[in-house]
Amino acid sequence: MAITLAITDSDVRSAAQLIQGVAVRTPLLEYQPLNELAGRRVLVKFEGAQHTGSFKFRGAYNRLARIPKETRGSGVVAWSSGNHAQGVAAAAKLLGIPATIVMPSDAPSIKLENTRALGAEVVLYNRLTESREKIARELANLRGAVLVPSFDDPFIIAGQGTIGLEIIDQASKALAQVTQVLVCCGGGGLIAGIATAVKAAAADIDLYAVEPEGFDDTTRSLIAGKRQTVVPNATSICDALLTPSPGELTFPINQRLLSGGLVVTDDQVRAAMRFAFLRMKLVIEPGGAVALAALLAGVAPPAPKGGDMVVVVSGANVDPNLYAEIVAQR
Amino acid sequence: MAITLAITDSDVRSAAQLIQGVAVRTPLLEYQPLNELAGRRVLVKFEGAQHTGSFKFRGAYNRLARIPKETRGSGVVAWSSGNHAQGVAAAAKLLGIPATIVMPSDAPSIKLENTRALGAEVVLYNRLTESREKIARELANLRGAVLVPSFDDPFIIAGQGTIGLEIIDQASKALAQVTQVLVCCGGGGLIAGIATAVKAAAADIDLYAVEPEGFDDTTRSLIAGKRQTVVPNATSICDALLTPSPGELTFPINQRLLSGGLVVTDDQVRAAMRFAFLRMKLVIEPGGAVALAALLAGVAPPAPKGGDMVVVVSGANVDPNLYAEIVAQR
Repeated sequence: MAITLAITDSDVRSAAQLIQGVAVRTPLLEYQPLNELAGRRVLVKFEGAQHTGSFKFRGAYNRLARIPKETRGSGVVAWSSGNHAQGVAAAAKLLGIPATIVMPSDAPSIKLENTRALGAEVVLYNRLTESREKIARELANLRGAVLVPSFDDPFIIAGQGTIGLEIIDQASKALAQVTQVLVCCGGGGLIAGIATAVKAAAADIDLYAVEPEGFDDTTRSLIAGKRQTVVPNATSICDALLTPSPGELTFPINQRLLSGGLVVTDDQVRAAMRFAFLRMKLVIEPGGAVALAALLAGVAPPAPKGGDMVVVVSGANVDPNLYAEIVAQR
Repeated sequence: MAITLAITDSDVRSAAQLIQGVAVRTPLLEYQPLNELAGRRVLVKFEGAQHTGSFKFRGAYNRLARIPKETRGSGVVAWSSGNHAQGVAAAAKLLGIPATIVMPSDAPSIKLENTRALGAEVVLYNRLTESREKIARELANLRGAVLVPSFDDPFIIAGQGTIGLEIIDQASKALAQVTQVLVCCGGGGLIAGIATAVKAAAADIDLYAVEPEGFDDTTRSLIAGKRQTVVPNATSICDALLTPSPGELTFPINQRLLSGGLVVTDDQVRAAMRFAFLRMKLVIEPGGAVALAALLAGVAPPAPKGGDMVVVVSGANVDPNLYAEIVAQR
């Protein structure tokens, strides 16, 4: 039985038209020390340069801009550990839509502060005892607001997919022959969108989801052939990737299009962040560094037929104290 | 009496041809929070993405590639606090030329390590009691090697000027109307090269040299109309910009082409580095942050006729402990 996927590449192209001139076309960078370590050309898509410091603005803007003008006054509600919060807040501000974001009280303070600074109302909840989804749904019902999921939504997935279109175009201009793409994975919206765009352009490119140890639900789900949940009580410094299971919409896409999942440890993530500081001069947050970590730690599969690799760095909103500790190795 | 300047824009175009496909075409980035603070469009030329983490590779490669193949075996000698050292070492490695670099024993250890890792021989000297120029000249004479100055050389200046060509091209593609360019200034080679390229393309763009407090020799020289030296016993965290006076070749160019000099304090530099960490997700070293600091601190002159600004971020080789202290505000 053929499953109808939530989006096609034409949805991604539609999103690209909508965000053109609004979202940042982020750079695809190349570094000699990284090429030497990897033994091949590696191109780095740096979404730290995106509005609000992560890819989330793309999907948020594509979702919010589809809300009819006459209902925008009732606002939007979202829940997020931080990056989706900021992406929704920034998109809402641009479109003149009131935004309320439900965030865990232990989210990095930089993410709480930035969300408030973008004009959104922040409602805190206890990650261990309360359901953010329930709080958000009640708020949305109460206000007649639109609920904006962080990944399991066709417009969100398509918006994130615009990164894939840019990768194909920028890699071609850099005369690269891309055969593999590594992308971080929480709920799977980012890689589902990117895979949709990349596979439509070049079906022979392999895409891998990279997850932190203990949160390898997508990796295990791909092996099991059905959605699995994370290890109970697991912890990780990758606060952006602590999603309990693959999405209902994202998983079928990823199951169809991905070549597999890869898992990295927090120590490998720290090493990648420090490498990026020393050699690439880019600030990367833990969750944004897992794909780079997989490459540097030798977890990524070898190139099956030679060819170049793309690593997506998805975000850079890292707590200053944690970052200081990592770069100074204290 | 007309003074003949050391280079013209055709020398910069020649350098651009030579470094094409060898040096990194670094990105020109734009950030909404920076635009909002500045009240205008600001484009950031990020040379942290250049080989060895600073602009110095451009000039070094343009200089070393001009050495006839039959004399390359005798090697090159340079002196540098660190970025020129790495630039020369990387260019020498690519061209198969033995390199010896005379460096101060108190240079940031990251710069010493990186220079050695690029295969260069490092000779240390005491910055307070010895003359690096004398040591380097004696070494060069002894070995029959070519001395590679860090700024006062036509090929070095022209190589750095390739940044100016890229700025003009990238700003045009970004539909920006550039009216002002801020560039850090030590010996003045970077801004002399950039000004040569920019003024040839658009004579109405104003360029400003930005220097750290106590090392404002170019700013004062521009006012006095002749070369001045730095304040005795001055100190600054901007280790890349501690040059005692403008160059013999660079100053006449800067006198002809610049609109003036700007001066920033170490605290303003720290604030700019922290802003770049939080909002731009870029690692910047102190000397590379002075132009951004001038803009953020309100030291830059207002746009005379509206228009957009380009800020050159020249390098990113910062000591991890200093960086940790600055981002965590410890």
